[in-house]
Amino acid sequence: MTRHTALALAVATLVLAPALAAQKKKADVPNPIQKEYQAVADRIISAATADSAAWNKLAELTDGFGPRISGGEALERAIDWIIDRMKREGLANVRGEPAMVPRWIRGHEKAELLQPRYLDMPMLGLGMSVGTPKGGIEAEVLVVSSFAELATRGADAKGKIVLYDAPFVSYGATVQYRSSGANVASKLGAVGVLIRSVGPFGMRTPHTGAMAPYDSTTAKIPAAAISMEDAAMLHRMQARGQKVVVRLEMDAHQLPDSPSRNVMGELVGREKPDEVVVFGGHIDSWDVGTGAMDDAGGVVIAWEAVRLLKQLGLTPRRTIRVVGWTNEENGGRGGQAYRDAHTNELEKHIAAIESDGGTFKFRGFGFTGSDSAFAIVNQISRLFKPLGVDSASVGGGGADIGPIMARGVPGLGHNVEGTRYFWYHHTEADNVDKIDPKELGENVAAMAIMAYILADLPAPLPRSGKPVGGPER
Amino acid sequence: MTRHTALALAVATLVLAPALAAQKKKADVPNPIQKEYQAVADRIISAATADSAAWNKLAELTDGFGPRISGGEALERAIDWIIDRMKREGLANVRGEPAMVPRWIRGHEKAELLQPRYLDMPMLGLGMSVGTPKGGIEAEVLVVSSFAELATRGADAKGKIVLYDAPFVSYGATVQYRSSGANVASKLGAVGVLIRSVGPFGMRTPHTGAMAPYDSTTAKIPAAAISMEDAAMLHRMQARGQKVVVRLEMDAHQLPDSPSRNVMGELVGREKPDEVVVFGGHIDSWDVGTGAMDDAGGVVIAWEAVRLLKQLGLTPRRTIRVVGWTNEENGGRGGQAYRDAHTNELEKHIAAIESDGGTFKFRGFGFTGSDSAFAIVNQISRLFKPLGVDSASVGGGGADIGPIMARGVPGLGHNVEGTRYFWYHHTEADNVDKIDPKELGENVAAMAIMAYILADLPAPLPRSGKPVGGPER
Repeated sequence: MTRHTALALAVATLVLAPALAAQKKKADVPNPIQKEYQAVADRIISAATADSAAWNKLAELTDGFGPRISGGEALERAIDWIIDRMKREGLANVRGEPAMVPRWIRGHEKAELLQPRYLDMPMLGLGMSVGTPKGGIEAEVLVVSSFAELATRGADAKGKIVLYDAPFVSYGATVQYRSSGANVASKLGAVGVLIRSVGPFGMRTPHTGAMAPYDSTTAKIPAAAISMEDAAMLHRMQARGQKVVVRLEMDAHQLPDSPSRNVMGELVGREKPDEVVVFGGHIDSWDVGTGAMDDAGGVVIAWEAVRLLKQLGLTPRRTIRVVGWTNEENGGRGGQAYRDAHTNELEKHIAAIESDGGTFKFRGFGFTGSDSAFAIVNQISRLFKPLGVDSASVGGGGADIGPIMARGVPGLGHNVEGTRYFWYHHTEADNVDKIDPKELGENVAAMAIMAYILADLPAPLPRSGKPVGGPER
Repeated sequence: MTRHTALALAVATLVLAPALAAQKKKADVPNPIQKEYQAVADRIISAATADSAAWNKLAELTDGFGPRISGGEALERAIDWIIDRMKREGLANVRGEPAMVPRWIRGHEKAELLQPRYLDMPMLGLGMSVGTPKGGIEAEVLVVSSFAELATRGADAKGKIVLYDAPFVSYGATVQYRSSGANVASKLGAVGVLIRSVGPFGMRTPHTGAMAPYDSTTAKIPAAAISMEDAAMLHRMQARGQKVVVRLEMDAHQLPDSPSRNVMGELVGREKPDEVVVFGGHIDSWDVGTGAMDDAGGVVIAWEAVRLLKQLGLTPRRTIRVVGWTNEENGGRGGQAYRDAHTNELEKHIAAIESDGGTFKFRGFGFTGSDSAFAIVNQISRLFKPLGVDSASVGGGGADIGPIMARGVPGLGHNVEGTRYFWYHHTEADNVDKIDPKELGENVAAMAIMAYILADLPAPLPRSGKPVGGPER
């Protein structure tokens, strides 16, 4: 706040105090959902923030199994551990539902600057990239800031490694270089691609993440992320007229698909056990860091929400199902498998909630569905006042619940403060220590309240009739 | 600012405005130095902040030569480049003065967690550490939070690798584990030492840095830093009752001392060329990152200050000498060699200024010397008002000027905003991109103003008679 703003506010407060008080009073009139569920919500918040149970569970999971890439042993062992623990906690219908997942192997990799000086650069091959030919590739680098700049220098890309030093604008806007950079450069005859890691801040920290499928009409070329710092430095070297040469060695390759599982457990509804509110996150991660925010945290938030409801003796009318979907990162096969395994029950899926945007301070839910359902979600959100939130936002969902949203299931996305999320996203630094136990507990409370009330309301959330969310995949 | 504070301020401003205005007026009465040098100072600030010359020079230096550890070729080539560039800029008496420096070689190194799960941990051997025996060491880990805790568990350390997971309090308070950790643990029979990297924040980022000399009465054991995240995780694993086993492999070793140089150039005084204000930073760095903040930035700030004075035609009464000292990080031999080479001129060293605390927002100078000299430095500091500073602080110096301060030369330390400095200190992330060109230019201005006026005042800074600074080394 600037001093001017503060002063204006102080004056406004003096002048407008009576009017504001009246407005405040009006806003405080409890809606019907508040009247019904205020006491329950307060109990949940109090219990979820009383200790560090969620943080400790997340630490045990991520310390214990580390990164959990699809097709790897760590993921399956983590799923076994979750099944065992859910059973010991007394959750119902605990199981793993099969999903075949891709198996991309990073292998040995190295990116070395050879000219104008030697530097072993921190790097991460992009997920699903091909490897280099045995022995690596050595090529001059062409640095560009954007696809537009590359287009103007098309002829220069032939035989080169193209480096996209695209400044971070937002994840959505900047991730295109990770997704499509290889296909675009390959069409111009490039032999490899480097990208400036997609994030607003780093400490020589490469960020991995999935590429779009290779275009079938052009050569598959290897692609890797280097740090923001090194991308900027190579760009400066080129601007100084220096020849920039890089050697890239990547053993990345794919093995045949292998079996994995969506892991789940339930709190069975007391009146309509076949109607379901499903929520959770994805249990797979990239093969770096420990995927604590992305997305063991999302799984643990929903899981702890169910455990907490059970502990408090709160059994809603309908069933609440927590799911740790598999293979969100490089295939989305878990979400698809869930849709296919539950096709006949999707009519009875009241809502789906995904937490896959981090584990920082709770910022409310975004909702995709009918207007009348939004009004209900918005009313429920008034109960989050102790958590600093009192409304829902329009639009929300998640990659794992996308396939069932496309079949008409109303979808919610769990939102949190996002400033620092992309510092850590898909890096070695996505660890539990970045997460605040109190904030995590508040997220558990919010998820528990939202799921409980959606599962407990006399009538299911009204559907609009038409499917919500994006196209099926 | 809270709303309450803002309101209080608003009220206070209204009530106290006349009184404040009077006080402000009094404070604004220019002191004699301001009267004499205000116009010059404003010219310097304007010129130093007009472009990104300092940042570009720092980028060229750090991009071009990378890390510059004592005894390495990169350091000597960087010194050659500085000599050449200083000459081309027309600085006088450009030269390298010899200093023999230690030659510590990191070599291959690796720290692997073997139990309870495998993890290749980011690590950096501590500077001047011995290596492990060939083939490495494999041992159970004892994690402690402090020397005090280790003392209570003395018997448990035998045959183990001791990990100090000491939380960061301040650099001064926490660096003791890096300095003395190996000696303390060795006395208890430990076979190796790990420390939680010394810093308030990291992204799985190990920080290197020098150890104190090995104690001659006990075994020399290898010591390395791991990331804050991994140190905390190993601590949690131990707390869960898990056996923690690490394999440490370090080829670190020392070669015989080798020749290096303090690099310097001058702006020769117009009246008393044999009286000198010496300032600068250290040109060596650790063997990671590019040592942009620590301390190429300090060298460039002073160097650009001299170039700027020359460009502006500002020739002071006495000589200003910019020095890039060698071997600050692991020996301090540059500062000692400077003292020895200039022993007979130290009486005529008016002041020594060091910049070795980073390159963020300028925060003034700290001074060590006589009270009457402090008063002058404080008066000069009023000229920094456009840079947000208007006074000096008591106490200041630097490792490289310590040896001449101990012989009576008044010493100044160049202070900057320090919040983030220890995020990057001694890591792969100490790169020029963390530095703001405008802030760097403001530091150049401040150093130019301080050096120019100290060199130009009719009388030299009064000395107290007794040596200032710490004991000689």
